[in-house]
Formats: sequence, structure tokens, C-alpha cells
Amino acid sequence: MKLEAFAVKGLFVSFEGPEGAGKTTQIMLVRNFLQAQGIPCVTYREPGGTRIGDAIREILLNPELTEMKPRTEMLLYAASRAQLVEQEILPALTKGYTVLCDRYVDSSIVYQSIGANWELEEVIAVNQIATGNLKPHRTYLLDLPVELSQKRLQARNQRDRMELKDVSFHSRVREGYLSLAKKEPERFRMIKAIGNIEDIGKQIANDLLDLVKESQANHNF
Amino acid sequence: MKLEAFAVKGLFVSFEGPEGAGKTTQIMLVRNFLQAQGIPCVTYREPGGTRIGDAIREILLNPELTEMKPRTEMLLYAASRAQLVEQEILPALTKGYTVLCDRYVDSSIVYQSIGANWELEEVIAVNQIATGNLKPHRTYLLDLPVELSQKRLQARNQRDRMELKDVSFHSRVREGYLSLAKKEPERFRMIKAIGNIEDIGKQIANDLLDLVKESQANHNF
Repeated sequence: MKLEAFAVKGLFVSFEGPEGAGKTTQIMLVRNFLQAQGIPCVTYREPGGTRIGDAIREILLNPELTEMKPRTEMLLYAASRAQLVEQEILPALTKGYTVLCDRYVDSSIVYQSIGANWELEEVIAVNQIATGNLKPHRTYLLDLPVELSQKRLQARNQRDRMELKDVSFHSRVREGYLSLAKKEPERFRMIKAIGNIEDIGKQIANDLLDLVKESQANHNF
Repeated sequence: MKLEAFAVKGLFVSFEGPEGAGKTTQIMLVRNFLQAQGIPCVTYREPGGTRIGDAIREILLNPELTEMKPRTEMLLYAASRAQLVEQEILPALTKGYTVLCDRYVDSSIVYQSIGANWELEEVIAVNQIATGNLKPHRTYLLDLPVELSQKRLQARNQRDRMELKDVSFHSRVREGYLSLAKKEPERFRMIKAIGNIEDIGKQIANDLLDLVKESQANHNF
């Protein structure tokens, strides 16, 4: 089955940013807000979101597997994503649901390419194949200073393999995200992930509500 | 680290063919033969061959995961292969070992592309990235009629997700292998996997021994 055969009716929204930026909380707030407005939506997280993706996630986030090569890591994220897109995201979009996704291709570009000195073109090529080139209509980049994200992570009990990387890695991740956002200003919205959690949620929800109304008016998805 | 940075000194040999063709047995026979000749060699199997690859193998061969999409499957095989190449195969080749590998990229091309009506170019592109385009110097294709491979599989106790596919799938797999072998006659050796097991082993070992001597004379790896 070709992915292109799907007729996308819903809005596809991804949330990006470093660990500790509050993506999971914001997705929950935005989902509640949209549902209260009568807009049907579903949420997924990467890696994972499916039974197969969760099994892949266990391998990816296992802190004991320090021998994992960047190529392997990149392909495992792509495999989890391929399953999520074809099994969940595309069917939901064709039914008209708004899909809120915790991380997507941009995470791979930033973490595996920029973060790990990986070949950018190879990451992009593999992810185009994995997703059938399905891109989000909107991406919220939750941005915060590296020191603050480090502090938030230290307050958590468990730290996985990704979170154990050093400060300079996290700085390059932040720079990578900012550079992606600059390249696609139409798709990205930069959100300062500092301050009142509810206020940040309202800012995202209002922007998203505008986009939902616009898409309903134009039928352009 | 770029894979191209490795200086390959050893001989890289893959064994291909349908389930039930006797690849595992033949690799054992050939390894024993080469070692008796003082030629150091190591063996690996795909998917797997590393701790990470074995974890991926468990997902791939789990018969309960019937919802797995061809894209996901292809990317998981590539991830296992990427880890095996960089962690095991390339270091062994640089030390001058002869590497005997039970399945490699040709399996993905045949099973995921031809077998599952997948896009050939995408499988090739992903595997070039996964392996840094490392190709075997020699590939032994153990060929046998579909009816015979089916019979041999039925005699086994356990059948995994791959082995549960129908007869027409296995016919297309055989045709796919024969077509690959025709395209690269220099690399492929067709071996009829019928008859005395020891005789088949001797046939492979003799061909391989010629290749080892040739490579030692030419230093061309």
C-alpha cells in the first residue's frame, strides 16, 4: 500500500524541543482545550505510540546499550515512526482527527544528525522513506535555555540514555532546533517554555484553533 | 566515524537462500573447514549477531506482531544490520578475519522488496546508508525448489512470522534470489541445496578457498 493513497482531512501537529521543555504537559493541555471546543483529536508519542513502537522504544531508551551506533539509533527511530504513521497517524488524519504528536522527524534530524555529528542527508532520506514524506502542518518548538532544561531533568528520578548525554550535546540540540525553525517559518511556531504552564498552553491552543478554523474554511488538507 | 575509514583486509562472505536451505549448517561446515586450514574466521547471523541486533530480532520474528508494516520491517532489519556491520563485521575484516554471514542485504531486497511488493529503490537506499555500502566479496545462494523448502520447514517444530507466509510468497522469494544472482554473476555462486550435506559443504569450501588464496595473492581487499 502506498502512503500517498490516503486522503488527509485532519490537522497534523508535532511538538518538539529538548527533554524537560514540558512537551507532554502541553500536549495534554492542548488536547483538553481542543476537545472542549468539540474538535476530535488523538495524541501519540515518539518513539512508541504503537505496540511495535513501544518494543522499539525499550531498546532505544535502555541505558545499558551504550554500544549503540548512531546509524542503528537513527534507523530504530525511523522504524518506530514508520509503524506509527501507517498504523495510527494516517488513518486518524483520513478520519478528520487532529493529531498531536510528541516528537517527529525533526527530533531525528536534530538528535541524530546535528546532535551526533551524523550525515544530515542520510537522516532526511531515511525519514522520507519511513514516513512516505508525511510532514506536520504545524510544529510547536518548546524552547528553553540549556541550563534550565538540565535543572528540570535533574529533578526527575529516572534518566534514560538520551538524557544522560552531556551539556554540549544539549546545546547543539537547541541550536539545531532553532536552525530548523528558521528554515521553515510557516510550519514552526517558537514557544518560550518558561513561565506559567497554563499560559503557555493557551498560547499554543489559540494558534492551533486559528489553524483548525482556517483549514476547515479552506478544506486544504 | 565514517565507515569508509576502515581498511578491509579480510574476506566478507554472505550466505543467502530460503528458510530450510541449510544455510546455518553449511556455515558451520565451512567455518570448520577454513579453521582447519589455518584461516581465521568468524560467523554472524541476521537479524541479530549483536546484543542490540538480538533485541531487534525478537521483535522481527515475534509471530504475534501481525500488524507490522513492510516499511517498519525493512527499517528494523536495516537497524540490526547497521549495528552488526559497525560493531562486528568491519572490525573483524580490518583484522583480516574471513567473515561468514547468515543473510545480509540481499535478504532485505528479496524479502522486503520483491517478496512484499515493496519499492526496490527504497530498500536499496536505506541499506546503503545502514551498511555504509559494504558489500560481500562472495555470496553463496543455496537454492532449492519451493516444495522442498516447505517440506523441510514443516518438519521443524517452531515456525516464526517469516516462515508462516504462503507458498506463492516463497516462490517469489526464490525468483527474486535467482534474479539477483543473474545481475551479479561475479559475486554470486549458485549452490544446489539438495543431496549430501557434506558434499555441498565441500563445494562451497573449495570455491571459498580459491577466493581466499586469490585475495592473499592480490592483496586486493
